[in-house]
Amino acid sequence: MNQQKNNAVVGQSGGPTSAINATLAGVIRGAAKAHGEGKIGTLYGMRHGIEGLLSEEMVDLLDIFREESDLDTLALTPAAALGSCRKKLKPFREDETVYRRLFEIFEKYDIHFFFYIGGNDSMDTVAKLSAYAATVRYPLTVVGVPKTIDNDLAGTDHTPGFGSAAKYIAATMREILSDTAVYTVRAVTIVEIMGRDAGWLTAAAALPGLSGGRAPDLLYFPERPFDKNAFLSSVNAAFEKHPNVVVAISEGARYADGTYVGASAQSGATDAFGHQYLAGAGKVLEHIVREEIGCKVRSVELNLPQRCAAHLASRTDIEESLRIGAAAVSAAVRGESGVIMSFERLSDEPYRTDIRAERVDGVANAVRTLPDAFINAAGNGVTDACLRYLAPLIRGEVEPKYEDGMPVHFVLP
Amino acid sequence: MNQQKNNAVVGQSGGPTSAINATLAGVIRGAAKAHGEGKIGTLYGMRHGIEGLLSEEMVDLLDIFREESDLDTLALTPAAALGSCRKKLKPFREDETVYRRLFEIFEKYDIHFFFYIGGNDSMDTVAKLSAYAATVRYPLTVVGVPKTIDNDLAGTDHTPGFGSAAKYIAATMREILSDTAVYTVRAVTIVEIMGRDAGWLTAAAALPGLSGGRAPDLLYFPERPFDKNAFLSSVNAAFEKHPNVVVAISEGARYADGTYVGASAQSGATDAFGHQYLAGAGKVLEHIVREEIGCKVRSVELNLPQRCAAHLASRTDIEESLRIGAAAVSAAVRGESGVIMSFERLSDEPYRTDIRAERVDGVANAVRTLPDAFINAAGNGVTDACLRYLAPLIRGEVEPKYEDGMPVHFVLP
Repeated sequence: MNQQKNNAVVGQSGGPTSAINATLAGVIRGAAKAHGEGKIGTLYGMRHGIEGLLSEEMVDLLDIFREESDLDTLALTPAAALGSCRKKLKPFREDETVYRRLFEIFEKYDIHFFFYIGGNDSMDTVAKLSAYAATVRYPLTVVGVPKTIDNDLAGTDHTPGFGSAAKYIAATMREILSDTAVYTVRAVTIVEIMGRDAGWLTAAAALPGLSGGRAPDLLYFPERPFDKNAFLSSVNAAFEKHPNVVVAISEGARYADGTYVGASAQSGATDAFGHQYLAGAGKVLEHIVREEIGCKVRSVELNLPQRCAAHLASRTDIEESLRIGAAAVSAAVRGESGVIMSFERLSDEPYRTDIRAERVDGVANAVRTLPDAFINAAGNGVTDACLRYLAPLIRGEVEPKYEDGMPVHFVLP
Repeated sequence: MNQQKNNAVVGQSGGPTSAINATLAGVIRGAAKAHGEGKIGTLYGMRHGIEGLLSEEMVDLLDIFREESDLDTLALTPAAALGSCRKKLKPFREDETVYRRLFEIFEKYDIHFFFYIGGNDSMDTVAKLSAYAATVRYPLTVVGVPKTIDNDLAGTDHTPGFGSAAKYIAATMREILSDTAVYTVRAVTIVEIMGRDAGWLTAAAALPGLSGGRAPDLLYFPERPFDKNAFLSSVNAAFEKHPNVVVAISEGARYADGTYVGASAQSGATDAFGHQYLAGAGKVLEHIVREEIGCKVRSVELNLPQRCAAHLASRTDIEESLRIGAAAVSAAVRGESGVIMSFERLSDEPYRTDIRAERVDGVANAVRTLPDAFINAAGNGVTDACLRYLAPLIRGEVEPKYEDGMPVHFVLP
């Protein structure tokens, strides 16, 4: 292992996105610059978040990424190149064991900068490690960089990773709209979109309506109660306009009593042993239409490609993710700790953002949902204000390298 | 309507693909050339296949597509720009009504060339119209151009549309493989792929293994009986190698007794009223893994994007589709009738094909499945010969126009 002093470590945590590796590439570029200026020794990458760190599974990222072209490939590789974990730290006043072990490792490797790229749980880790470092008086600068396709983090205009997922959804929705338009027979197509607690991604399904294009007829979000009869009336009303009705629904849509529309969401998809056939919100709506209207109906769950279709990433999102990663290192070397990096939007058109460091305590564990001003009065569509907010985030295309007709991904040696 | 003589008509039929509009663009380019040479009056487009033709819903395509750039956009627009139908003609010896009506329309519009872009049912229509024209001695040149993502048509090396669907599957599978690799917890990811009768598309899921990349661990095709115990043994064997097992299964996979693995496939997805929750082959495998192995498991149905994700179309497929469309017009003006256009492969590397006109009678209604030489001995993977066959078909990327961050589609006025 490297014998340098004043080192940094970076990890990725939580669910993968198409942009989390772009943020990592930004951190690596920032660290390489800081290394050149003598401010950081080297940058370790922890494998599988703090789980790997606890067993000292680390790689020397400045050594691995000596070629700029590898960083370019990394930035367009989906999922977490370092691996990920879903570990949430207990408060250290309850159990100090893990904290003691982590700080032993920091001491052993002379680590004084800790960068963590992740969602809500990861920002919670940032807050706790920062507080513990102060308690034990170990000089550790802790900086979180948000990522989540769900866009439901407080304290930032939007999250890295959301724009690419939104672009995938918008483009795929346009393709599905073209596909469903070919027949004259009445049919309903239901598209289930990720987002357990917030409707941001489902709102992105409305983007094909920009510039006068066709958009889905109906959208259903977790922010508004789902009503079966209102849904059926809306579908029948849409049939007055055209024979091919297209509906988008969040996986997290709920009835007025708070139960999920999707049976699988209700019982928890991964721990629901013994359930014969689990069904998501899309399948449930498919069933409702078949039973109550009796027309041709199909449901499509966009599923994993929403978070890993990096070939269709938003250039805006990837460039911002690179920038926010580098900005995290700048913030750290100028002494900011216990912060998460965030975007402040200065204007929609032309789209301009600033990157800031926010105190992490105020934002961790808070869920940001679609504001009322972004949802229409009927609760089944978005407003122009919502489209103005979303539009710049999906702009621009990336140009991944292709080999054998498939995008090339960076695989850590 | 146009008053020209010696006109042609073209239609699209059957399920949409990402390349069927490229074939249409090829027919339009070919017809414009033939028009310039005085060999064809104009080219009508029938809306929604012969269904629209029967009610004289036609557009003048040479008039609409005067700009080359519109043809370029059309070629990268998924689904059928003219609309589609699923009408199968009865034999004219049983019922001549529809034939009489069609030939009245041909006479009225002075149509002597009939181009039909479609799958098996459409080639059946080509055969029947050609035979009927001979019977009633109406001079009609009938040429079929195949399209199907399923690649299950006889008499051609491959079908237009297959390469783009295969590329979407291969690229998406690579993205899913990256996504699933981030955690250390044992997990099975099951990907359900289209193909009711043949495993060509599922075989394409193996393409990420080219050039040493990771490929799915197990593939299941309709061509080999699915055995639950063998499947479970294979998954457990794959866990010996890595914690993230990835499986691809055709929607048409069947047990040894011929029943479909997917319950929805078994009962027919659209007419199965009253079934609480229909499940495809992927969901059934998810259930088997959860019950019998008990690890984390997820299923992903690739669904409609397989046939409409035109932004990721194969350049090879789009260029061939343009060529075969134009070749159909050339064949027609040199007097070939009752034929379908087909590809003959001259070599894999470098990849070279010829376009030929085949007698339609021999190929309509025949299903071409994966040959034995393309499936491994265990029946759960493909051979190198299969990869050599598939590899050239997904090569090359297209460059669709984007507006507002989404691909631009051509919409018929």
